[in-house]
Amino acid sequence: MQQLKDRISSDGQIMGNGILKVDGFVNHQVDPSLMDACGREFAKRFKDSGATKILTAEISGIAPALTTGIHLNLPVVYARKTKPVTMPDQVYLTLAPSHTKGRMVELIVSPEYLANNEKVLIIDDFLASGATILGLARLAEASGSKIVGIGALIEKDFEGGRKALSKLDVQIESLACIKSLDNGKIEFVD
Amino acid sequence: MQQLKDRISSDGQIMGNGILKVDGFVNHQVDPSLMDACGREFAKRFKDSGATKILTAEISGIAPALTTGIHLNLPVVYARKTKPVTMPDQVYLTLAPSHTKGRMVELIVSPEYLANNEKVLIIDDFLASGATILGLARLAEASGSKIVGIGALIEKDFEGGRKALSKLDVQIESLACIKSLDNGKIEFVD
Repeated sequence: MQQLKDRISSDGQIMGNGILKVDGFVNHQVDPSLMDACGREFAKRFKDSGATKILTAEISGIAPALTTGIHLNLPVVYARKTKPVTMPDQVYLTLAPSHTKGRMVELIVSPEYLANNEKVLIIDDFLASGATILGLARLAEASGSKIVGIGALIEKDFEGGRKALSKLDVQIESLACIKSLDNGKIEFVD
Repeated sequence: MQQLKDRISSDGQIMGNGILKVDGFVNHQVDPSLMDACGREFAKRFKDSGATKILTAEISGIAPALTTGIHLNLPVVYARKTKPVTMPDQVYLTLAPSHTKGRMVELIVSPEYLANNEKVLIIDDFLASGATILGLARLAEASGSKIVGIGALIEKDFEGGRKALSKLDVQIESLACIKSLDNGKIEFVD
């Protein structure tokens, strides 16, 4: 998606350790009109997926998942990383490594909102190693739901996430796919 | 806003301790079309505020802030509760008590995205004691910005937040104002 790639080229910052900082339009400050356009694009790409629910992880997945939900008219569930007092004692919980936190984090979903037989579209900000998305997929499978698609705003091709997700055998879409961050240069896959 | 009040009446759950659970459409599962309608309503109410930026707190403020940002065409900044590796060392940080966590949490904003002379519209999911919103207001003031309005999806009138915020002397809007949760009944202010 050219609009997102252009924004990454102009405002993305390479932090070292393979970290791309997009805090100015995705992760701390959000550009709502860009995010809305990304949601519309995901909706177009997944219109035939049969999804009945969108699943993401707090925090940074919420914005793209919400705009996708607006355009597909589907409810959005975001996995929590800490269990709030409003959640029942019995939950779906899995662990996933956090790239930016440098430790394992919990991903928790209440059975109230991820029921048997949902068709789940996973939307997140980044597809890097695929570990967070695999965690979300485990939660969905634990609930008896089926993954029908995976969408990420930004894919870091060099971290191999797409291969890690291939065992799920579903449509995977990223709106900007980065080949390399070497030598201080953001290079996209054509 | 009748649509939100109706949803609270049908799907909100009283948890005790003055906690209203709205996890089915705001806090864990989000109803995108309701959230979009709430954003449109905030945009209407704050169209003359002169706001240049929307400020909220992760996690549950992101959805209503984003849809308001879409309709006002304004960037949205969400205060982080932990400092990610992508954030500079020098930040705006304040503490606010969390009602649902039962402890103080940090609210952190990078000076990169909250600059001098912004006109800030604060949007959050709940206005209860007002402590989180006062924390956001302190961050904005620390950056040299000015608060021009405060919007909350759900106000718990009996917790006195509106009075606590009155010293800010700005327009305060809630889309559903709850008078009481006593006796297992959700009662709205007319």
